[in-house]
Amino acid sequence: MFRIIKQSGAARRGEFETVHGTVQTPAFQNVATCGAIKGALSALDLKEIKTQVMLCNTYHLHVRPGDNLVKDMGGLHKFTRWDGPILTDSGGFQVFSLAGLRKITEEGVTFQSHVDGRRIFMGPEESMMIQSNLGSTIAMAFDECVENPATFQYAKDSCARTYRWLVRCQKKMQELNASGKAVNPHQLLFGINQGCTFDDLRIEHMKQIADLDLDGYAIGGLAVGEPKEEMYRIITAIEPYMPKAKIRYLMGVGTPGNILEAVRRGVDLFDCVMPSRNARHGHLFTWNGIININNAKYERDESPIDPQCDCPTCRHFSKSYIRHLFKAKEMLAMRLCVMHNLYFYNTLMERIRQALDEDRYEDFYRANVDLLDTRI
Amino acid sequence: MFRIIKQSGAARRGEFETVHGTVQTPAFQNVATCGAIKGALSALDLKEIKTQVMLCNTYHLHVRPGDNLVKDMGGLHKFTRWDGPILTDSGGFQVFSLAGLRKITEEGVTFQSHVDGRRIFMGPEESMMIQSNLGSTIAMAFDECVENPATFQYAKDSCARTYRWLVRCQKKMQELNASGKAVNPHQLLFGINQGCTFDDLRIEHMKQIADLDLDGYAIGGLAVGEPKEEMYRIITAIEPYMPKAKIRYLMGVGTPGNILEAVRRGVDLFDCVMPSRNARHGHLFTWNGIININNAKYERDESPIDPQCDCPTCRHFSKSYIRHLFKAKEMLAMRLCVMHNLYFYNTLMERIRQALDEDRYEDFYRANVDLLDTRI
Repeated sequence: MFRIIKQSGAARRGEFETVHGTVQTPAFQNVATCGAIKGALSALDLKEIKTQVMLCNTYHLHVRPGDNLVKDMGGLHKFTRWDGPILTDSGGFQVFSLAGLRKITEEGVTFQSHVDGRRIFMGPEESMMIQSNLGSTIAMAFDECVENPATFQYAKDSCARTYRWLVRCQKKMQELNASGKAVNPHQLLFGINQGCTFDDLRIEHMKQIADLDLDGYAIGGLAVGEPKEEMYRIITAIEPYMPKAKIRYLMGVGTPGNILEAVRRGVDLFDCVMPSRNARHGHLFTWNGIININNAKYERDESPIDPQCDCPTCRHFSKSYIRHLFKAKEMLAMRLCVMHNLYFYNTLMERIRQALDEDRYEDFYRANVDLLDTRI
Repeated sequence: MFRIIKQSGAARRGEFETVHGTVQTPAFQNVATCGAIKGALSALDLKEIKTQVMLCNTYHLHVRPGDNLVKDMGGLHKFTRWDGPILTDSGGFQVFSLAGLRKITEEGVTFQSHVDGRRIFMGPEESMMIQSNLGSTIAMAFDECVENPATFQYAKDSCARTYRWLVRCQKKMQELNASGKAVNPHQLLFGINQGCTFDDLRIEHMKQIADLDLDGYAIGGLAVGEPKEEMYRIITAIEPYMPKAKIRYLMGVGTPGNILEAVRRGVDLFDCVMPSRNARHGHLFTWNGIININNAKYERDESPIDPQCDCPTCRHFSKSYIRHLFKAKEMLAMRLCVMHNLYFYNTLMERIRQALDEDRYEDFYRANVDLLDTRI
C-alpha cells in the first residue's frame, strides 16, 4: 500500500494507496475538526487548495453530531462530501487534553464531555467502533497521551498499557472490517509510538508495535511543549526501528521548519492546526517568512499576501482589502487567510516532493528551514 | 440607460445599462455592508449565486477603512474585485439609525461614529464626495430618514429639506464627475422619495424630484415597521408620479411576498439584509416556504435544503450536515446558508423576469405571494 519512489538520506518520496485515492508523500493533512475546516471552507474548497488528506477528530464527532448519526448518513465522506482520504484520530489526545475529570483503567478512560458534561467511557474497542462508524480511510489506535514531563516509571507503565490497547485495537478493527456492516470495510489502522522523552522507552515501544504489521506508524506525544531539538533527537533515535515499508506520521507537527527537519529524518505524513489557527489571527505564511496582516504597513498595500503564491486568495485579493476585512471583523477575512495558509502548507509539501524527485532535497531544506519560520 | 422591454399592468420587465454592465430588472441587490457579504462570501462567489448588483454601505466604509483609502486602492471595484454594478447608499439611513448623538441643520448632520465615537459631519456634498471616492456605479442622494410615526409638520419640513439636499447632491455629483479626478466619472445618481406615511407629502415630493431628471428614483423610509398594507398603498399612490422611463428602487424591501407585491406596483429594484441575516440564523427560503435548519427533524435528513434548488449549497450538501455545522458553530454553516438564501432571492427575481417575459406575471404572483413567506 505504501511505496517508496525515491530516497535521499533518511528522507523518503513515496505514494500511499488507499480506497479513497493515492496520497503523494511527504504530505500534510488539513484539519477539519468537526467535519469542516474552520474558516468556512467546504470539501469543494479543498480541491482548490491542493488538499490530499482531510483529518477529522473522533472525540469531537463522537460528542457532536454523534458517530451513529454520521454512520446513518453514510459515513464522513458522504456527510462532508470530501471524497479523498480521511484520517480520524483516536480521540485519545482530546480525552487527555480537552475533556473534564477523567479516570484511566486497564479497560480505558472515563471522562466528561466538554459540550454537555455527560460521562463517556472510551477504550480501544470504543475508539475503533466510533472510527468504524465514521468510516474514515485511516483510523488511529487509541493510546494514552502522557503529560510532559512524566516520570520514567509512569511513562514505562503507560507505554505497556498503550501497547496492550493497540493489540486490542487491531483485533477490534479486524472484526469490524470483516463484520459486513462497516461503512468502509477497508479501513486502515495506524499504531502510535509513545514513550515521552525517554529514547530507550520510545525505541522499545517502537520495536514492539513494529511487530504488529500495522498499515502505518505514527509518532505521538511530541510537539507538546518540549524543545524542538528534543523532538528531532527522538525522531532520529526511533527512525531505524520504524518499518521501512510503512508510511510514517508525525502527529501534530508543525512549523514549516519542523516539517523540513522531520522529512529529513524519514517522516512521510504530518498534521497541525497551526496554518488554519494562525490564519484566523492574520498570521500568514509566505515564501519570505511570516507576516501579520494586521500590521499598519499593509493598510494601502495593493499586492497579494505573497506575490509568489497562486492560491485563490493571492490570485484575486490585496493585503489592503484583507486587512480591512480583519478590522471590520468580516468572516471573509478568515476564509481568505485559511485558504492561503493551507495552500502554502500543501505547496510546501509539493515542493518538498519535487526536491526529492529531483535529488536536491538538501539544497531545498537548507534554503528554507530557517527562512520560512521567520517573522518579517 | 433604462429600457422597458415589456409591461404587465404596472409591472415592468427592463434593462438598466451601466458602465459596469447591464442589470436585468426586476432585480435584487445583494448587501455587502463593508465591501463583503456577511457569511464569508467574496466577489468570486457572487458570480456563482447569480448576483447582479452588490450594495455597499457608505457610512460603514467611510468610518472603516475610510473612503480615501478605498479611492487610493482604485475604488470599490478594484478593492473588492467585484466587477459588476455597485450601488452605494448615501449614509443617511445609518446616520439616523446607527450613529450616536446627532444634530440636523440645513447644512447636514453631525453625529458620532459607532466605531470610535469621533464626531463626523455629513451633508449632501460630503455624501457625494465619499461615494465618488468609493467609485460606485450608482450613488444615492443624501436624505433624512424620518422616524415613523412622525407628525405631518415634521415630515413636511423634512421633505422640503431633503429636496434642497437633493438639488445640492445633483450639483455636487455633476462637479465630481466632471472634475477629471473621479474613480468613476460616469457615476449615476438616484433621488429618494420621502414623506413618511402621508400620501399627499409623498406625491408632492415625488413630483418635485421627478423634475430633476435623475438617473433613477428610489422610495425611501418604508419597511421601517409600518404595516405592509400601508407600504403597498404608498407605492400605489406615488407610482403614477414616478418617471416611467427611469428605474425605480424600493429601498430595504423585503420578503419574497413584499417583492412580488411591489413588482406588481411598478418597482424594478430591491435590496434587503433579510436573506443573508436569516441565513445566519438558519432560516432558509425554499420554494415551499421557510424552514429552520436547527429543527430536530432535519437531524438525519439527507436531502438538500430545497430539492428544487440548484445553488452551490443544495447541489452538494445535506440538511443533516448543515444542521450539524450550525450546532458545532462552524462558520461554514453560515457561508452555505447565505449562499443558498441569496441564490433563492436572485432566482426569485429571475423567475419574476421570466414570468414577465412570458406574459404570465399575474399567475406567478398568485402562486407564490403567500406561499414563499410561509413557515413550514
